[in-house]
Amino acid sequence: MSDLNICVLPGDGIGVEVMGAARAVLSTLEKRFGFRLAAEEHPGGAAYWRETGREMPQGAWEAARSADAILFGSMGLPDVRYPDGTEIAPHLKMRVDFDLFAGVRPIRRLPNTPAVLASPRAADIDLVIIRELTEGLFASRGKGVVIDDREARDTLVITRATSEKLFDFAFDLARRRKAKGSAGLVTCVDKANVFVSMAFFRKIFDERARNFPDVEARHHYVDAAALDLVRKPWVFDVMVMENMYADILSDVGGGIVGGMGLAPSAEIGLEHALFQPAHGSAPDIAGQGLANPTAMLLSTAMMLEWLGHRHGRERLVEAADALDAAVERAFAEGAAFPAEIGGPHGTAEVTRAVMDRI
Amino acid sequence: MSDLNICVLPGDGIGVEVMGAARAVLSTLEKRFGFRLAAEEHPGGAAYWRETGREMPQGAWEAARSADAILFGSMGLPDVRYPDGTEIAPHLKMRVDFDLFAGVRPIRRLPNTPAVLASPRAADIDLVIIRELTEGLFASRGKGVVIDDREARDTLVITRATSEKLFDFAFDLARRRKAKGSAGLVTCVDKANVFVSMAFFRKIFDERARNFPDVEARHHYVDAAALDLVRKPWVFDVMVMENMYADILSDVGGGIVGGMGLAPSAEIGLEHALFQPAHGSAPDIAGQGLANPTAMLLSTAMMLEWLGHRHGRERLVEAADALDAAVERAFAEGAAFPAEIGGPHGTAEVTRAVMDRI
Ligand SMILES: CC(C)[C@H](C(=O)O)[C@@H](O)C(=O)O
Ligand SMILES: CC(C)[C@H](C(=O)O)[C@@H](O)C(=O)O
Repeated sequence: MSDLNICVLPGDGIGVEVMGAARAVLSTLEKRFGFRLAAEEHPGGAAYWRETGREMPQGAWEAARSADAILFGSMGLPDVRYPDGTEIAPHLKMRVDFDLFAGVRPIRRLPNTPAVLASPRAADIDLVIIRELTEGLFASRGKGVVIDDREARDTLVITRATSEKLFDFAFDLARRRKAKGSAGLVTCVDKANVFVSMAFFRKIFDERARNFPDVEARHHYVDAAALDLVRKPWVFDVMVMENMYADILSDVGGGIVGGMGLAPSAEIGLEHALFQPAHGSAPDIAGQGLANPTAMLLSTAMMLEWLGHRHGRERLVEAADALDAAVERAFAEGAAFPAEIGGPHGTAEVTRAVMDRI
Repeated sequence: MSDLNICVLPGDGIGVEVMGAARAVLSTLEKRFGFRLAAEEHPGGAAYWRETGREMPQGAWEAARSADAILFGSMGLPDVRYPDGTEIAPHLKMRVDFDLFAGVRPIRRLPNTPAVLASPRAADIDLVIIRELTEGLFASRGKGVVIDDREARDTLVITRATSEKLFDFAFDLARRRKAKGSAGLVTCVDKANVFVSMAFFRKIFDERARNFPDVEARHHYVDAAALDLVRKPWVFDVMVMENMYADILSDVGGGIVGGMGLAPSAEIGLEHALFQPAHGSAPDIAGQGLANPTAMLLSTAMMLEWLGHRHGRERLVEAADALDAAVERAFAEGAAFPAEIGGPHGTAEVTRAVMDRI
């Protein structure tokens, strides 16, 4: 019996396939570690919108809100749009509606994946980008204006309330990583030399840093940070930044470790949390069994870890560690070399290789 | 005798040293190709501000405005700030005041420079990023607001007038590059799936594209473009984007070809043009003869080419080509391997190696 429940939203395209992988692995973990999560699956996304004119069925949104965690595949299709031309993205609304202010994007190189950076040090890349997810330039979503077909404006908003929560989250993460051997460093990425909002962001960062004397706090301008992510990513541990900057830099981060099929993510608030691979719905390869489930499986491990810590369930934390280690080992032993990054293995083989190692 | 004059602004730190290299090379070129540019040099920048309370001497600004081109080193020092805490950057004012709307950042790999990307295809990287330089998020410079120490805002502005000029510039460049063997492709980098201003930017791009049927026009979201710059930069030819996006992506571009000491740039308007290396004043290595003059020399070649085309002076275009080829050859022959990227050569040796090959 379980008192924790998760809302499962596979979404569009390969979201459905990688979610299949996640659910198979979850049930292996449930047996192996003796826990059960009540999972309720709901449709939703661009294909659903095309059929029904709604993003998600009635009730699915409330199910997501009341769940202990949301496990998310991918929503959106290039040829399905709202009347104003923007993408079908209920996910963006969830970030705001559920106050998922901290986007967590671990950037870690898996064994045996083709090197993107030439430096041998790139094998040890292990950093985390924290993306503010509810404001910044994205505060302007749905609010930008065009005046007379002559000029358009969008406004970037930084609030003290969100920034304080965000920085505390980042420092806290750095402290926990330090306990496991990382540098214990948070880098605030901004453009305080040009923008008032960014100077404000930095000022709040400096204020919050004082409560974490055991963690080192540094600043980096966003352009220089992008350069250093490519040239020497090993100088970073935890990076924290505004929504739009992080949207870009976390893809640079995904790039240096081999692409989005390997990039898990979590979107965390004080009340809710959503876990999803950082890749999109990839309709070009959907339905062919070629999707790389790695990012989805690592996101699932992040969910188990978060649930375990939040609810004091040691078994969930153990299951998370086991899943993470199984992925790492499947790659290290050459049993998982996804087609998406040039290897021979489709969704089923990668999933099987991971399950066999749990 | 010369009727073309350039305003020379060495600025701070290594700006002074690399400008020395540029002037030495320019005088070699003048002799070899039989032309003369009247060069007027002015101080200015952060050190000047510290001493005088002014950014530049009276008259220097007007000299810059009335020159046929501005050759710029680097201005700014980390510990010298305006009272509001932002950097001493007369350069940012010039962009707006002289309407230098098109920032041109060639991303090209020089021979024998240490590989940053592992792929062998990275040896052939040759693309150009066009950065809008007068508006976008930077329209908010000096205009952002903080409300009650609670919330801060900066506004991104896209105008039709500037965007049209910008896209025409990009398509025109792609057309000229196509004549020399490039793909003939312009990629508009935006976030039209989320922001009204970016959908407006893209719409104008599509409109202007129709006047250049011989050039291919594509779109790319900014996050995906950042990823592809790292994973497969060879898919790009000319990229064009909003000011802030380009500030970040052009540093990613600089990163994949070895860093800012190799990255030239031009800032072009309809009336004025400024040429400068993309790196900063690097006070940590200033005065030691260690600065890498390559970016400055390649920027000087861009200036000669631009002046030559604009004023119909074939000799200037030839001098530009000769300088560019001399840099390329100095690297190919191992005579220029700057200390900044791990080689043995300081400013003087690199400069000498290039001069010897003109
Ligand atoms: C689909 C898009 C709107 C979204 C974003 O920009 O947040 C995506 O890029 C992401 O990073 O989750
Ligand atoms: C110094 C800084 C304000 C400037 C900018 O952001 O434009 C620099 O990064 C550049 O790219 O020229």
